[in-house]
Amino acid sequence: MESVSAAKAEALVVTHGPDVRYLTGFTGSSGAVALAGGQAALFTDGRYAAQARAEAKGVRVVIDKRPPAVQAVEWLAKAGVRHCAFDAGQTSLAALEAMRKALPGTLLSGTARRGFFVATDGLVARLRQVKDAGEIGKMRKGAALGCRLFEGILEHIVAGRTEASVAAHLEFAARMAGVEAMSFETIVASGKRSALPHGRATMAKLPKRGFVTLDFGMLLDGYCSDMTRTVHLGRATPGEWDVYHSVLEAQQAAVAAVAPGVACGVVDEAARSVLRKAKLDKVFSHSTGHGVGLEIHEGPRVAANQEQVLEAGMVVTIEPGAYLAGQFGVRIEDMVLVTQGGGKVLTAASPKDWMEL
Amino acid sequence: MESVSAAKAEALVVTHGPDVRYLTGFTGSSGAVALAGGQAALFTDGRYAAQARAEAKGVRVVIDKRPPAVQAVEWLAKAGVRHCAFDAGQTSLAALEAMRKALPGTLLSGTARRGFFVATDGLVARLRQVKDAGEIGKMRKGAALGCRLFEGILEHIVAGRTEASVAAHLEFAARMAGVEAMSFETIVASGKRSALPHGRATMAKLPKRGFVTLDFGMLLDGYCSDMTRTVHLGRATPGEWDVYHSVLEAQQAAVAAVAPGVACGVVDEAARSVLRKAKLDKVFSHSTGHGVGLEIHEGPRVAANQEQVLEAGMVVTIEPGAYLAGQFGVRIEDMVLVTQGGGKVLTAASPKDWMEL
Repeated sequence: MESVSAAKAEALVVTHGPDVRYLTGFTGSSGAVALAGGQAALFTDGRYAAQARAEAKGVRVVIDKRPPAVQAVEWLAKAGVRHCAFDAGQTSLAALEAMRKALPGTLLSGTARRGFFVATDGLVARLRQVKDAGEIGKMRKGAALGCRLFEGILEHIVAGRTEASVAAHLEFAARMAGVEAMSFETIVASGKRSALPHGRATMAKLPKRGFVTLDFGMLLDGYCSDMTRTVHLGRATPGEWDVYHSVLEAQQAAVAAVAPGVACGVVDEAARSVLRKAKLDKVFSHSTGHGVGLEIHEGPRVAANQEQVLEAGMVVTIEPGAYLAGQFGVRIEDMVLVTQGGGKVLTAASPKDWMEL
Repeated sequence: MESVSAAKAEALVVTHGPDVRYLTGFTGSSGAVALAGGQAALFTDGRYAAQARAEAKGVRVVIDKRPPAVQAVEWLAKAGVRHCAFDAGQTSLAALEAMRKALPGTLLSGTARRGFFVATDGLVARLRQVKDAGEIGKMRKGAALGCRLFEGILEHIVAGRTEASVAAHLEFAARMAGVEAMSFETIVASGKRSALPHGRATMAKLPKRGFVTLDFGMLLDGYCSDMTRTVHLGRATPGEWDVYHSVLEAQQAAVAAVAPGVACGVVDEAARSVLRKAKLDKVFSHSTGHGVGLEIHEGPRVAANQEQVLEAGMVVTIEPGAYLAGQFGVRIEDMVLVTQGGGKVLTAASPKDWMEL
């Protein structure tokens, strides 16, 4: 944990669920990890006793009724730790206060001039951005499954059926294929609703003519997938066709810009500049993409002016869109693995060509 | 907002999603509400412009690229606010720091002796505990739908099928009935896995003989439902039958204890004492229940020694269980509305009698 020593702390307490999972394999909803002197311990409560011991191989597991973070801090204090790093982005003021109260009085006074707790910013989240071969293998599987599910769902995209029924069939197929859960609320946004970037599936009926945007992902072996395709029901207008192809061109330009050492802002600008030429930049109301892994949204942010550079092993989404309020919208999204040779599209099995159903 | 003035602040900034929804109706994933001098404003970003205006009726909506909490604080500072309450349990140290940086320097120095930000503890969460008639109506519908779905899923609980296939059929039926999403990852824990209190559905096959615990809930019109039934495949052993009936007795005792003015710890003890007599208290490894509403877990906590008293309009789960590691487990859960006349079981349409399939 080089970055912990950089933070001038000899220990780290981790409470954010995906970070806990990353470090130990434990998947329960309540847990904390303490790291100090090359030792790690996982703290959770009785509900997860059996599960924690099965999942967190090679890690000491402690079961207690008190909050896991409190247990972790007491354990570190007993081990003689004087300065402990924590993640300021994942720790509420109330949680920090509870951890403070868990410290013995002697330790609090002994470290009065320099606090026991040292705020850091996403130490484990940063480690998680670059995936190892095992993680990449899982994410490839998730992306490939997404493509198969999309192919299978096309027969259910029929005028008059509800958006919810499309989601229902998609999620059923996902479950039967062994996914643990969807990685976020499935978006099926049809007709005018396609102009909502986050139009979750509703009981609205698919129109005879209009776009249907499908944005979905699954949790497979803990890792999230995320992809979007937009198809058209019935004959499109030339305007719809034009917007679709501008978004597609922007998406392909951003994918082509992906490479190690390239700043995320440069990738974002690759998409944005295409939409600017088409006078659609004002209706591209979000960033180009985000990292994905144990969480559906994680680092790096592929957004305007972001200086963070891509590294081999990162997996990001590339998902520009254009949303004409009250009319229609289009978004196209792939998962892209950063490799030494450039961006490798993990969701390439799903065509992005214009599709009229 | 009496409780805000009690906190000696003339304003409140709210960033926790369910609280934002409660106050404004806005359902997007990124938003903040500022309340001051009887005025409210909702801040979000461009992805949610149309949605925020449609959902947050009668509330001023401000769209900007900066983080919503930063927008809210700037707005309050411009409005002349000097002390602003925030929820210490829902605000990370990093988020508070970002809000601090949004303050103009003059204001920071002017309030140097007493900070601009005043930590409070779940002001909106406390309001949310007591449901009004509209909320109760939605929760009744969710609970009733849960009971219908449970009845429909019984035919799919068949030896040799996977836990995931049971979840798939349940979630498909839920979607087709119009739910927005499941309110948590569906638990289908069969055979030895029933001893895991949080055994999410896996590709494990249902056994010829053994328990199957189904714990599931849906989001319907924003409100969560939550219920658990445990059924038995094939002939049970006398030991299984005994544990089931001890848990059932404990569950019924706790439901009977629910009434306005009763401390949550008393309700918990009603269940726990039954299991103690049956020598099962050591394997009842969690609390008896929790409040439910816009979030699947909210106040009050129905747990040992909790002094908070129940109030009419609260909705809590009552869900004792017993988990014999390596053998089997049983849990039975209802949603219970606190009324002047006592506890009203919202999931009463689903029988709790011993069920051998």
